[in-house]
Amino acid sequence: GLEGDDNDVSNPFKVASSIKHFLGYQVPVSGKDRTPAIISDQALREYHLPAFRAAIAAGAKTIMINSGLINGVPVHANYKILTKLLKEELGFKGLVVTDWGDIENLHKRDRVASSNKEAVIMAINAGIDMSMIAYNYEPFCDDLIAAVKEGKVKQERIDDAVRKILTVKYELNLFEKPTTNIKDYPKFGSKEFEKAAYNTAAESITLLKNTNNVLPLSKTAKVLITGPNANSMRTLNGAWTYSWQGEKVEEFAKNYNTIVKAMQNKVGASNVTYLPGVSYKMDGKYFEDFADKMDETIAAAKNADVIVLCLGENTYTETPGNLSDLYISDLQTELAQKLAATGKNIILVLNEGRPRVISKFEKNMGAILQSYLPGNFGGDAIADVLYGDVNPSGKLPYTYPQFPNALFTYYHKPSESRETTEGVYNYDADYNPQYVFGHGLSYTTFTYGDIKLSSNTLKKGETLSITVNVSNTGKVSGKETVLLYISDLYASDVSPDVKRLRGFDKIDLKAGESKTVTFKLKPEDIAYVNAELKTVTGEGEFTVQLGNQKINFNYTP
Amino acid sequence: GLEGDDNDVSNPFKVASSIKHFLGYQVPVSGKDRTPAIISDQALREYHLPAFRAAIAAGAKTIMINSGLINGVPVHANYKILTKLLKEELGFKGLVVTDWGDIENLHKRDRVASSNKEAVIMAINAGIDMSMIAYNYEPFCDDLIAAVKEGKVKQERIDDAVRKILTVKYELNLFEKPTTNIKDYPKFGSKEFEKAAYNTAAESITLLKNTNNVLPLSKTAKVLITGPNANSMRTLNGAWTYSWQGEKVEEFAKNYNTIVKAMQNKVGASNVTYLPGVSYKMDGKYFEDFADKMDETIAAAKNADVIVLCLGENTYTETPGNLSDLYISDLQTELAQKLAATGKNIILVLNEGRPRVISKFEKNMGAILQSYLPGNFGGDAIADVLYGDVNPSGKLPYTYPQFPNALFTYYHKPSESRETTEGVYNYDADYNPQYVFGHGLSYTTFTYGDIKLSSNTLKKGETLSITVNVSNTGKVSGKETVLLYISDLYASDVSPDVKRLRGFDKIDLKAGESKTVTFKLKPEDIAYVNAELKTVTGEGEFTVQLGNQKINFNYTP
Repeated sequence: GLEGDDNDVSNPFKVASSIKHFLGYQVPVSGKDRTPAIISDQALREYHLPAFRAAIAAGAKTIMINSGLINGVPVHANYKILTKLLKEELGFKGLVVTDWGDIENLHKRDRVASSNKEAVIMAINAGIDMSMIAYNYEPFCDDLIAAVKEGKVKQERIDDAVRKILTVKYELNLFEKPTTNIKDYPKFGSKEFEKAAYNTAAESITLLKNTNNVLPLSKTAKVLITGPNANSMRTLNGAWTYSWQGEKVEEFAKNYNTIVKAMQNKVGASNVTYLPGVSYKMDGKYFEDFADKMDETIAAAKNADVIVLCLGENTYTETPGNLSDLYISDLQTELAQKLAATGKNIILVLNEGRPRVISKFEKNMGAILQSYLPGNFGGDAIADVLYGDVNPSGKLPYTYPQFPNALFTYYHKPSESRETTEGVYNYDADYNPQYVFGHGLSYTTFTYGDIKLSSNTLKKGETLSITVNVSNTGKVSGKETVLLYISDLYASDVSPDVKRLRGFDKIDLKAGESKTVTFKLKPEDIAYVNAELKTVTGEGEFTVQLGNQKINFNYTP
Repeated sequence: GLEGDDNDVSNPFKVASSIKHFLGYQVPVSGKDRTPAIISDQALREYHLPAFRAAIAAGAKTIMINSGLINGVPVHANYKILTKLLKEELGFKGLVVTDWGDIENLHKRDRVASSNKEAVIMAINAGIDMSMIAYNYEPFCDDLIAAVKEGKVKQERIDDAVRKILTVKYELNLFEKPTTNIKDYPKFGSKEFEKAAYNTAAESITLLKNTNNVLPLSKTAKVLITGPNANSMRTLNGAWTYSWQGEKVEEFAKNYNTIVKAMQNKVGASNVTYLPGVSYKMDGKYFEDFADKMDETIAAAKNADVIVLCLGENTYTETPGNLSDLYISDLQTELAQKLAATGKNIILVLNEGRPRVISKFEKNMGAILQSYLPGNFGGDAIADVLYGDVNPSGKLPYTYPQFPNALFTYYHKPSESRETTEGVYNYDADYNPQYVFGHGLSYTTFTYGDIKLSSNTLKKGETLSITVNVSNTGKVSGKETVLLYISDLYASDVSPDVKRLRGFDKIDLKAGESKTVTFKLKPEDIAYVNAELKTVTGEGEFTVQLGNQKINFNYTP
């Protein structure tokens, strides 16, 4: 973890991380921030707990709580989740902190407390150790002191919470050294750290489509680069970077390269013409866009060899980040469609924090790069990928939807992806993602050999070795992320996930080179939470999938 | 119920209804038919059980099971839901039937049974009494007989299921009279029944918008009527009427009136010009549409006094009914936008089984009528509403969304509809329905007097009388549905619903007339399911809302 292997956060190069938001924050029913989620106990344990359990095991010292509600109950008031589950069952020993004003919200917003004082009592008794008060701390303090005097919050609960807060501060050595000094961190902003930022961007960029190997581009091609994300440091960084909504990025990041500038640096300004086509409004509703020399852009496209179209979103978080429509904006769609009508090859570069739906023009794009929010060196990394100096190796970390009302998780059930059934009923096309989880192309080709298992049968207490040989059968070096998917063919109560990621490894292969990748699998690695909320490994057959190879084994307890 | 007050279904004018689909069928996570739902125990009892409990109390004799999964478990294999909840807790005594092939699905689709035989054992033991086998009944029979011989299904379970099936048949008098004869039903297809069908359509039509009283239309106005739903009996009826996907409606319903024909019958063909603009494909992918004389339609609009634009959907069910995009089609949107650009007043008539999103042109419509799927007399009823011979009185039975990824139920929580909060955080515009549940305009105006309560305090065992005087303060007769909303101001664990419909009454008022409406409210009528799954009525303050009037009362146990 960020705390280091020995969990010594007095080390000035380690931090006490705050894991957030506990729990199920990402699945509100209406899709809106800080609103109700409905989560069954089975789903909570199967899908929502494991990441927190792992972070706690890795030494996290503070945890922030889901600002919304689960099954109608605000999480900040939920004793079962904060104390029984988090502190007792998961054994979290650190401090539990609210998000922005969330104790007040129990009264003012969620109406489960008829006064602020009742809200304070509920939250502290539920297991909150520290309140992030938005504006006025006095009511919280006054109400809590009164509640303790009245016996509604026990003194021991206060002592417990204060002990947890002071322990983290003590472990951080804040009693000895309450402040930090930039002079103690000579590598801050150094070339070494800039290289690390560049590498992170370069490794994450995901090539989603590359028809007829239109990428990489020739360095002598005449390129028109356009779109609202083409010449923006703000969109490369996203919000919560230099400022809350990202509005100060341009002021602080002006020495880094946008995609336009990085491409011009690389192949010369005369080969790279920039016209916006569409731009984001930079005052007022900055998440809206407007046509910006669109006609001129379409006209210029006719003289270009290839078009690099940079679409996505402006910076956002919370509101206006609360999307009501997953489609990419109408104007960006129009720009893409009009450019496609010129017949030129288009390279779509996506720069977005969420998979905005592109199905109205995806078929007309020659190649598509997903750059996510790649940061200050994102422009350089994108340019290097476009021109082939970096071979893309990212894999899609979610299932990219084709339609706004057809959202699927990668760990979906068989009922969600069956394609046809016998007789007059036809379920074809119900499962229709744009790109599936784990998708990602390369400029080279990788070939997977047969999967080899140490045994056809895994028994309780044993370890199965899974081995596969991966070869770079193309002409350039490349990195391949080997994804280990396991499917339980039959489970006895809960319908098994179609394929579930149970491991991965990233390897670097020169052209013609082969490497062997080995995974070690224990029965508990393929367990699931059953309808009785027990974590069990089902007896019977499992399928292992690596690349396009599959093999089955049996588990017998 | 449909079984009559004495629950005597041997009466040839009564039927044994089948209530469906038990339970939570309408909330799959991905929005797709027959796929997994995640439902907490609290939500299951608060929102999903009450309608079934009421139908069982009203005498329903058969029930069909949800073809999907709840919390990972196929409902057809769920003993807790089928036997513990439905048969034991709710006391359902009738027969439990599967949907199409759903026992096979436990093996073939959901993979919770490793063979068809295991699927049969699971389903029958879970509480299924009758299997709707899609094609081949032999494997079911063979597997069930074998399972009984092996003791995996008890003979008593078979006897119990058979007894339930035979009991319903016996109660229906099928042993004495196994077939029906149309001659015994002289009113079938009669004028009386046609009038009832017309009345149902006329009462349901909902006026969503009526800027500057553009409706009702003058009978001498020159009308252009257009859109793919303007001249279609098929779309008025919807699917599951004359045939599964609705493809045979035109063949059988040709003697009834489309909207075009009903309007022409009413005011003369010379006043009503029809051009399609957009039409549905009638072979192949019939849910798709194509531009059909669109330019001619736009040109004709310029000569019309007003445009009646009939949009919506073609017939659908299951697949292709599984929507991936809630927006109304792109071509219908284009037609609406181009017509709006002519500057003419547009009356939008919606004919759709779901609230297809219209926000890209809603602002440009002068009036909007929602006709749902109004059946064979829908065209006549729509024409009568358009010309003012019927005053619309429907109320919207759902919250109509403005955007595809902003779906809200009417009984949402305070966290979903707060608009602003203090300080730098701004949550404005997160709650953005197009029209809220219960919305519906009239050609007259209704004024609500002060609400009168029999007491300011309701106590356990008592009944509160809520009275309001409603006046028709307009110039024409009209019907008003009085909706009784109750809000619990504070609950002690589950955040209370913003406003909850607890009663309604529909009254008919001549111009100038007033009537008093009375509701009787018991404490159990305002109860909710708490986090411990107990149905309780919270102590404290409640708000009553009727029309634009509000008053508070207290409940003390």
